[in-house]
Amino acid sequence: MRNKIRAIALSALLLSTAANAAPPQGSGTAWDILADMTTEVGQRLAGSPREAAAREWGVARLKTLGFSNVHIEPFTITGFVRGAESAELTAPYPQKLHITALGYSAPTPKGGLTGELVYFPTLDALKAAPEGSLRGKIVFVDHAMRANQDGSGYGPYGSVRRQGPGIASAKGAAGIVIRSVGTDSNRDPHTGVTSWPDGVKPIPAGAVSAPDANLIARIAGTGKPMTIALVLESHAQPNLPSGNVVADLPGRDPSLPPILVACHLDSWDLGTGAIDDAAGCAIVTSAALRAQEGGKPLRTIRVLWAGSEELGGFGGEAYAKAHASEPHAVAMESDFGAGRVWRVRVNFAESNQALGERVKTVLSPLGIVAGGDLAHGGTDVEPVISAQKLAVVDLDQDGTRYFDLHHTPDDTLDKVDPAELEQNVAAWTAVLQVIANEPGPISGN
Amino acid sequence: MRNKIRAIALSALLLSTAANAAPPQGSGTAWDILADMTTEVGQRLAGSPREAAAREWGVARLKTLGFSNVHIEPFTITGFVRGAESAELTAPYPQKLHITALGYSAPTPKGGLTGELVYFPTLDALKAAPEGSLRGKIVFVDHAMRANQDGSGYGPYGSVRRQGPGIASAKGAAGIVIRSVGTDSNRDPHTGVTSWPDGVKPIPAGAVSAPDANLIARIAGTGKPMTIALVLESHAQPNLPSGNVVADLPGRDPSLPPILVACHLDSWDLGTGAIDDAAGCAIVTSAALRAQEGGKPLRTIRVLWAGSEELGGFGGEAYAKAHASEPHAVAMESDFGAGRVWRVRVNFAESNQALGERVKTVLSPLGIVAGGDLAHGGTDVEPVISAQKLAVVDLDQDGTRYFDLHHTPDDTLDKVDPAELEQNVAAWTAVLQVIANEPGPISGN
Repeated sequence: MRNKIRAIALSALLLSTAANAAPPQGSGTAWDILADMTTEVGQRLAGSPREAAAREWGVARLKTLGFSNVHIEPFTITGFVRGAESAELTAPYPQKLHITALGYSAPTPKGGLTGELVYFPTLDALKAAPEGSLRGKIVFVDHAMRANQDGSGYGPYGSVRRQGPGIASAKGAAGIVIRSVGTDSNRDPHTGVTSWPDGVKPIPAGAVSAPDANLIARIAGTGKPMTIALVLESHAQPNLPSGNVVADLPGRDPSLPPILVACHLDSWDLGTGAIDDAAGCAIVTSAALRAQEGGKPLRTIRVLWAGSEELGGFGGEAYAKAHASEPHAVAMESDFGAGRVWRVRVNFAESNQALGERVKTVLSPLGIVAGGDLAHGGTDVEPVISAQKLAVVDLDQDGTRYFDLHHTPDDTLDKVDPAELEQNVAAWTAVLQVIANEPGPISGN
Repeated sequence: MRNKIRAIALSALLLSTAANAAPPQGSGTAWDILADMTTEVGQRLAGSPREAAAREWGVARLKTLGFSNVHIEPFTITGFVRGAESAELTAPYPQKLHITALGYSAPTPKGGLTGELVYFPTLDALKAAPEGSLRGKIVFVDHAMRANQDGSGYGPYGSVRRQGPGIASAKGAAGIVIRSVGTDSNRDPHTGVTSWPDGVKPIPAGAVSAPDANLIARIAGTGKPMTIALVLESHAQPNLPSGNVVADLPGRDPSLPPILVACHLDSWDLGTGAIDDAAGCAIVTSAALRAQEGGKPLRTIRVLWAGSEELGGFGGEAYAKAHASEPHAVAMESDFGAGRVWRVRVNFAESNQALGERVKTVLSPLGIVAGGDLAHGGTDVEPVISAQKLAVVDLDQDGTRYFDLHHTPDDTLDKVDPAELEQNVAAWTAVLQVIANEPGPISGN
């Protein structure tokens, strides 16, 4: 057995040397995938022509890199088309604000929306406002999100964006502005999707930058009435084309269920989607390739570059549905930037505990600790994990500065540290070499 | 002598206590001046209605704070009116760029300006381009400015903005885009004034953010031809109203030439001008007031909140001209943000060397070192210093992060550390208490 593996490794090495002699167009290093995707495609808003361009770009690159079965799995979505956006406090002091529409915001009426701006320090304060008390007014919701390594502030404070607009509309508000869900102090607002509960009318909904939110909070503290003029011309649009890009590196035993490694190909439109999530695609793809270097693994490694994650995880749902009858072994996702991996969490069935321990053991020399709750994957793999009870490994990245950049114009290539990106690839490669060579059944809880 | 000073100090203390019992509208702490100016006025572009509003605001605040002789000294300028601005790379890859027009940029033609974008890594490379070789093209000039404590990169790298447009136009370019003169990695471009040598036709001139400049440099490195579509609708406009705000805290001996402390009231229009230069006005004004606390000084302290500094130092020129026949003793300016004072430089005549040493001595306990070259003041006091050979004290602030914010939308109140601001006031107060109590003649070199 070992001799056979060595022979395969040797032939892979020879192939790899041959490939180096005539390098393929486009390299498989994580940095090159990341740099080229952000430079040659740029923003990749779900449902937009640029997301379609990204799919074509992805198919070409994955074929060049030697992947098999490279194809697009199309689906359609109700997307979001961004229009003109501006905001200005008109009283008590004229001040221009930096605003961006939230995903699925309703457009403002022709000529814009002007009205009294009512300040709420928290989402709970908005929830406590009497029904109908906000009729015709524009709501401002503040919050106090702070940075932390595991990004755990995003759940609670992100609810200001996810739920705030629906709550404001249900209480009769004509529009809503929130403090960006973020931790920076730039003038760049953070977009992101909101949603409207059944029967609640969409209203114009935008986020202002932290310095603008500070200004509003300061004026609110004086008790002086505020008015705001809003232009948010973005709108939802049905039946837009999207799709997943799927590609395989076949294993030695095609009868074994594959390892699925995922990222999302779409990005918000304000930046070039470097940390969210070109970096994730770069990491999982580069690691899948590098896992071949010690000899072709037993199991197929499949990469999923999912479409339309940002608008509601459409790509992950579509993948789970399209591949429902196809067993998988493990699913993993990289979608939290490019900061160094500091922790591993796993979710293996009782019968795979030894495998889980081996995963933790190979990561230990990289300074990665084991801990935390059960691994859960990410938006693009959760549907297939849930449907098939797959095993999961989460490689948790340092997210201390992630929400400085998340969903802003500042999400650009220069924010990625090449050394941290490589540490990610090393961690992913180590995990793939263990799990893709596991011959026995693998499942999760 | 000492008893007299004590009696004055005591009466000042009583007055101050009385004032505390019924606090004036608007406090004289540096933080309050800064917060109120940026909140209640906001941006104060030279020649604009908001600069006029700032003058009215300043007069009211300075009167409230007990200044005498509070008045506006009006003048007119050729100003700069900002219009719509956008830029997009159209080849080889469609990428939206974040751009802002430079001060005195010419407007793009109706429908915008589209053309080949020619990359120059440095201003010297642009200078070396053959005459006429750029006809009809749009020039991009890159540079490699880095942050440092004394801001000394601004001189050499700022020449890309100050001289680049004139050089490009002289060589036949249809437009110019530069890497923002700054040290941050946000998507917010830095504006700032440019100038056109005699006989050189103004062309559209803008600055893109650092991440956008990185993108352009990366594509330039591939050798692929680039095209850009520019919309820069800003334009110069003659005969706009501006003015200086001048106010005194009279000394015990009105016959002695006053101490002039200056800042500039105008700001660029993208942010709220917190560090540039509301902080300076807050520091010098608060220190002038605090210098009264130990007893009214011998000499009058005059504050100058100069207008139209950013577009070319018009306020400083106007002050020197209007007050040419009025002797001054010392002039100082605060116009480098709100970072802590780390160094003092002086410029005193040989006969005032002992006074200069006393200035250094009182600053030493605040951790401020003496050194560097001769003090020179700042744009708003240099004309009067030069005309009257005034003594000068420069309190040099830590500018390590100044050019992250300078002339950007990010120049907002939250960027100021209240403790560092107070250290500035303490340093200025200590200096004023020495020099405003000097009975003998004071002059510079």
